[in-house]
Amino acid sequence: MKIAIEPGRDEHLAEAVTSSGSAVVALDEADALVWIGGPDGFPQLADTVRWVALATAGIEKFVAAEVLDDRRLWTNASGFYAAGVAEHALTLLLAGLRQINTAVLDHWAKERIDPAVRTLRGATVAIIGAGGIGRELTPLLKACGARVIAVNRSGRAIPGAHQTLPTDRIDEVWALTDHVVLAAPDTPETHHLINDESLGKLHPHSWIVNIARGPLIDQSALHRALLGGTIAGAALDVTDPEPPSLDDPLWSLPNVIITPHVANPASGLTREMAPYLAENIRRFEAGEELLSVVAPGAGY
Amino acid sequence: MKIAIEPGRDEHLAEAVTSSGSAVVALDEADALVWIGGPDGFPQLADTVRWVALATAGIEKFVAAEVLDDRRLWTNASGFYAAGVAEHALTLLLAGLRQINTAVLDHWAKERIDPAVRTLRGATVAIIGAGGIGRELTPLLKACGARVIAVNRSGRAIPGAHQTLPTDRIDEVWALTDHVVLAAPDTPETHHLINDESLGKLHPHSWIVNIARGPLIDQSALHRALLGGTIAGAALDVTDPEPPSLDDPLWSLPNVIITPHVANPASGLTREMAPYLAENIRRFEAGEELLSVVAPGAGY
Repeated sequence: MKIAIEPGRDEHLAEAVTSSGSAVVALDEADALVWIGGPDGFPQLADTVRWVALATAGIEKFVAAEVLDDRRLWTNASGFYAAGVAEHALTLLLAGLRQINTAVLDHWAKERIDPAVRTLRGATVAIIGAGGIGRELTPLLKACGARVIAVNRSGRAIPGAHQTLPTDRIDEVWALTDHVVLAAPDTPETHHLINDESLGKLHPHSWIVNIARGPLIDQSALHRALLGGTIAGAALDVTDPEPPSLDDPLWSLPNVIITPHVANPASGLTREMAPYLAENIRRFEAGEELLSVVAPGAGY
Repeated sequence: MKIAIEPGRDEHLAEAVTSSGSAVVALDEADALVWIGGPDGFPQLADTVRWVALATAGIEKFVAAEVLDDRRLWTNASGFYAAGVAEHALTLLLAGLRQINTAVLDHWAKERIDPAVRTLRGATVAIIGAGGIGRELTPLLKACGARVIAVNRSGRAIPGAHQTLPTDRIDEVWALTDHVVLAAPDTPETHHLINDESLGKLHPHSWIVNIARGPLIDQSALHRALLGGTIAGAALDVTDPEPPSLDDPLWSLPNVIITPHVANPASGLTREMAPYLAENIRRFEAGEELLSVVAPGAGY
């Protein structure tokens, strides 16, 4: 088939197209469009374009910009980046437990670091919003000797998790777990899920990792909890807003690690997506169901 | 049996002794001594003390101080801390690849961090000196999607490693691997194993992790390689000397992470050792071979 890759060129995706026996063409000749940008500048499409492959995992911005239509098939990249995001979540949790922030900021602070070092072995980690990322993260945590409590909307068991609970039992989780990894979408139900109440049920040794969306955390409440020793620390790849303002008090706390929304780095995006694109081209040509089809109106 | 714990008290080890049905007693009544200090202040022992359990993994200092004798059995804690040290090694490697140092030092430096983020998935990691720590680290790296090349004196295969090579083929390893974890003892053969030549065979994206002993690395050569971009970074839990001097140029490099010799934190030592002590008490009473018996004269 004939596939356009816009805007601009990309070697990884072009290789996925050609290795699938398809051709990279201009949009006006294309049967399908691979779109590696955001909604701004999204082109008007002829009805001959039967499939659009978006390169982002979340499609909130495309929904808001009313880009999606029902005249063709749409896929996003939900799940394609899950393994990489899980690796970042593990990194943030281990970096917190092992006091890497203090080590980087304060040279050879052995007297403070040694008694503060914690381990994942024997610890319990709750993954809130355990879907694709949770499925990838669970075996990593288990390899490190941790117990996993998965929490998701359905309560459908995550393979390898010690326990999977439905979201409506989330209030039970805080006291049961040592640490928390947030992996849930940003919805009205998850807004400020981490707040004074949930923080108060966690423990002085607890770390919170957020690789999902900033608004899941009430950052004022988090700041109070970190300052007061209610929990041990927070490692955040996402914040609210992004970036945090220069005078955000979180920057000045030694028990906070903030990475600049790079769990799924833009620089590695198309390399990660390429094998999934090749598989979806194969499926499209074979008339099979594609990976990561967008349900119009789903909003995430 | 009757066991002394010196110097001082320790709740974790006392619990291990009493839960084994033994009694914690003063040294002059003891059949065995659990010694949780260094060689300084080590007591003169009556021949009625038939076993000494040292709490350190390395015994170089006890050998140098001529503390060991052949009038009783000696054990050390070699291997008891391997799982914790492996966790620290994984943390350092991931923290390097995921640019945690830059994130901590420089707020929301997304333009520099995003293109520099690397992943363990598909990467090759060489573990130099793959013994107990290597056995614990290998499954962690594999869970993260990495290939492991183990290098050890015997060349005896490490379970799960893609390849195990004997030390005399180490020159082949540098070009084959993406990253290096040093886990070898400090011996004349391993002194300055990382030097201008081996660094030159590594890659601009390579990270070196050292959780073993500082002198394995020629730090001047490392500084040159880091400054010149010969390798990507170094994450060190051990240095030469320790701590590094305040004006050591490694402190000023953004691609260096130094933790203050806390892979096996002193604060967690006896908690980690306790289950092994309980097992060794059981074995001693049953007349079985103990874990981690010191071969006099071995030196490590």
